[in-house]
Amino acid sequence: MPRRVDHEERRRRIAGALWRIASTRGLERASLREVAAEAGISLGQLQHYFAGREEMLRFTLEHFGAVSEQRIQARLAAGYPEPTPRAVLREIAAELLPLSEEQRIGLRVQLGYFVRVLHDEALRPYAREGALALRGVLVDQLRLAAGRGELVAGADPEREAVLLLALTDGLANAVLLDVLDPERAMDLVDAHLGRLFSGAG
Amino acid sequence: MPRRVDHEERRRRIAGALWRIASTRGLERASLREVAAEAGISLGQLQHYFAGREEMLRFTLEHFGAVSEQRIQARLAAGYPEPTPRAVLREIAAELLPLSEEQRIGLRVQLGYFVRVLHDEALRPYAREGALALRGVLVDQLRLAAGRGELVAGADPEREAVLLLALTDGLANAVLLDVLDPERAMDLVDAHLGRLFSGAG
Repeated sequence: MPRRVDHEERRRRIAGALWRIASTRGLERASLREVAAEAGISLGQLQHYFAGREEMLRFTLEHFGAVSEQRIQARLAAGYPEPTPRAVLREIAAELLPLSEEQRIGLRVQLGYFVRVLHDEALRPYAREGALALRGVLVDQLRLAAGRGELVAGADPEREAVLLLALTDGLANAVLLDVLDPERAMDLVDAHLGRLFSGAG
Repeated sequence: MPRRVDHEERRRRIAGALWRIASTRGLERASLREVAAEAGISLGQLQHYFAGREEMLRFTLEHFGAVSEQRIQARLAAGYPEPTPRAVLREIAAELLPLSEEQRIGLRVQLGYFVRVLHDEALRPYAREGALALRGVLVDQLRLAAGRGELVAGADPEREAVLLLALTDGLANAVLLDVLDPERAMDLVDAHLGRLFSGAG
């Protein structure tokens, strides 16, 4: 189905254009018109691929979310013959921190989107769903770890998932504001995981 | 100096108008013109009090920062005859979480500002200074606690200040997104403080 492939490829190119604008000038500047110009196509052409701004924004976030997931999978495949729950959690946290320029850009775009979501009830359910899905992945890994006896006594997987995500989120903001080194943020995540993964098993 | 008082009072009223717009429609919508309309004054009158949008924004954040501090002081005075470092840290964290509608609004405005800061090099130093000042307050309290033998063995005040702020920040975002109850966020902060304040002293 070459036409379908072309369609998706074009949508990804448009998503890339939106991403570049959002990361440099801010998400509010990424109008359909500006994105079309950045992607080197006409507004009419862009509207052939996306009915409106919200649809374009959602596709972009989903696309870069998928790219993020692939990076995690690739790092796990490269670094761990059999990834443990701890390794998976560490790589997810590493992906959520602005350790590289690419991640820093990604987080800036996501924060712009987050602020939009807070003022837009219609977008909220979609963003909630994404946050809860990510939390679910962490809960699964933590349950697996608990089953293997790897967690410290009394650790609750649901609760620890919330804590790890909140900690990573807050550390990411501190790095973005340049009040914390990226390496130090990762050290703090590692120390946190070290305390959590100190079970007798 | 009644004229000076009037001047400050008018600036606070304008700050209130900006706050209302930012919390409902988003910070990007709070132009000088919109704020003047919301405050019930002319654009020319507003410009008598603020030379530009950035100055107005800074004053607003400083004003509501001071209001926040007063709330913390009032809660400490009401709830603790002699506030311990742990009580001070708890009340600061409680102030930073969206536990009330007023705090939820405040955090939304601050997040809008944070995103602006990330795209604006000129604003960055001001925001960094605020974040480092807050961290400094926490470090001082944690050093005091360490001196009193209240902290768990091996706890480093600098590091624990970064962790507590990051955790609170991340939990606040989860509450804003409605994926975490405010009460549960506060429970998690209390549990975190409980583990940290388990020194022999």
